[in-house]
Amino acid sequence: MSDPIIQCVPNFSEGRRPEVVQAIVNAVASTPGVRLVDWSADTDHNRMVVTFVGPPDPVAKAAKLAAAAAVRHISLTDHHGVHPRLGAIDVLPLVPIRDITISQCSELAVRLGEDIARELDLPVFLYEFASRQHRTLPDVRREAFSEIKPDFGPMTPHPTAGAVVVGARGPLIAYNVNLGASDIRIARRIARELRADGAGGFQGVRALGLALESRALTQVSINITRPEETSLYTLFSYIAKRADELGTKAVESEVIGALPGFSAFGLIRDAIAATGIKPGQVLWENWP
Amino acid sequence: MSDPIIQCVPNFSEGRRPEVVQAIVNAVASTPGVRLVDWSADTDHNRMVVTFVGPPDPVAKAAKLAAAAAVRHISLTDHHGVHPRLGAIDVLPLVPIRDITISQCSELAVRLGEDIARELDLPVFLYEFASRQHRTLPDVRREAFSEIKPDFGPMTPHPTAGAVVVGARGPLIAYNVNLGASDIRIARRIARELRADGAGGFQGVRALGLALESRALTQVSINITRPEETSLYTLFSYIAKRADELGTKAVESEVIGALPGFSAFGLIRDAIAATGIKPGQVLWENWP
Repeated sequence: MSDPIIQCVPNFSEGRRPEVVQAIVNAVASTPGVRLVDWSADTDHNRMVVTFVGPPDPVAKAAKLAAAAAVRHISLTDHHGVHPRLGAIDVLPLVPIRDITISQCSELAVRLGEDIARELDLPVFLYEFASRQHRTLPDVRREAFSEIKPDFGPMTPHPTAGAVVVGARGPLIAYNVNLGASDIRIARRIARELRADGAGGFQGVRALGLALESRALTQVSINITRPEETSLYTLFSYIAKRADELGTKAVESEVIGALPGFSAFGLIRDAIAATGIKPGQVLWENWP
Repeated sequence: MSDPIIQCVPNFSEGRRPEVVQAIVNAVASTPGVRLVDWSADTDHNRMVVTFVGPPDPVAKAAKLAAAAAVRHISLTDHHGVHPRLGAIDVLPLVPIRDITISQCSELAVRLGEDIARELDLPVFLYEFASRQHRTLPDVRREAFSEIKPDFGPMTPHPTAGAVVVGARGPLIAYNVNLGASDIRIARRIARELRADGAGGFQGVRALGLALESRALTQVSINITRPEETSLYTLFSYIAKRADELGTKAVESEVIGALPGFSAFGLIRDAIAATGIKPGQVLWENWP
């Protein structure tokens, strides 16, 4: 029996100062037992996201060290960015990956929320599976400190670090497909088609059409909330075909953060119609 | 610094008696430190292949245990099958996977050949990189015991187990794409096009058109000898497109044995045009 493995995907309200971004990433990367999967910082949003995995104890430790670094370095009193945010550590979800259930993850999130409130003197709101009411992140953003009281910590925002939303959710894949067309209506149209009730009819897919101004491209920006039902390859093929039909091209795609292993394996199987391939046939041993 | 990892892909002249197949597979699977990647047995060819990986010592140990089981259970005096073969253990290649060179693999193959000759009293021929003349397997099959003397062991075939060919080679992928058409000419035509000097122009690709009589399908049967230059996705897409143009369909594909990790990652990247994806983004932790 191997250790249970969870994923943690905290978002921090800093995307511009490289030394702060690096301090937060280092807090995670230097925690023994944790694997840093990915991180990215966005200047426009002035925001960063770090993805890491490991057994519950090391992951909780890395999350607390990263949170402490964020409280030390980030002050919302002089923070500007287009993304809504509640605090220096904005949201901190735990995701079950292996040998652990979503309710066990929720219990871990509750304990982590308590620790963060006590150790950093921060108001903590629980969300998704960790909240009894299954509050969503938009719920908490809208009603924090008015309709919704913090679950742990002080009843008012921390003077510089605000508050933090901690919880447990299922895996999701953040996935973008970039189109050569500058006309945003094509991206919006394809995004609409992808939804379960659209022409594509993909279950558990949320999609938006966006303009990437700095690159003269448009983007179909997707959240796959049920990765076990929707193959990335099927999604990409649909978008590429529709882009062709609408007079443009799918020029590239981007996976943001983690790609669950089962989803990567499904992609391999679907892309080459290898119906009989077994997961053990892939040699992890020389993954690049 | 992690252990060097090699792959071993021995072929045995048994594909019909399940208890013998199982004894050979078990010899590998029960060796500590070795990962059994895949095995398959073919009744028509009366032949089996086992793929496993691990550090040099465990791999050599598993190879010797499997060889001993083959000598114990297989007798060529009552063996019938369509595949050419030199012995009960027919060919035993070592492949460098990680942190080891092909010449270090060749040295290991030479030592393994010596051990097998001594411990099992078998004539051993070296081939590919382990042989000074870079003898190929067809060379050895054609000239064993006449033009070519065994490198180790007795100068005449073992009465029941024949001889064995041991060596080192680079990674290769055995890959088949099955076509819906029963007309073998389409499979042959596409196979011809795949070669480096054909319309497809794929480097390091060997291909044949075959009939799969029992299934009323035809097959483009491929060996990719330079997997770092040829993406499985590009190959499959080419075949699928050509099959369409020639009035049939690529209905499925098969990876036989191991798919190198770098090749699986390249497939993921190519299939969804994810030019920026990094290997670490894939969560091995929940590979199915």
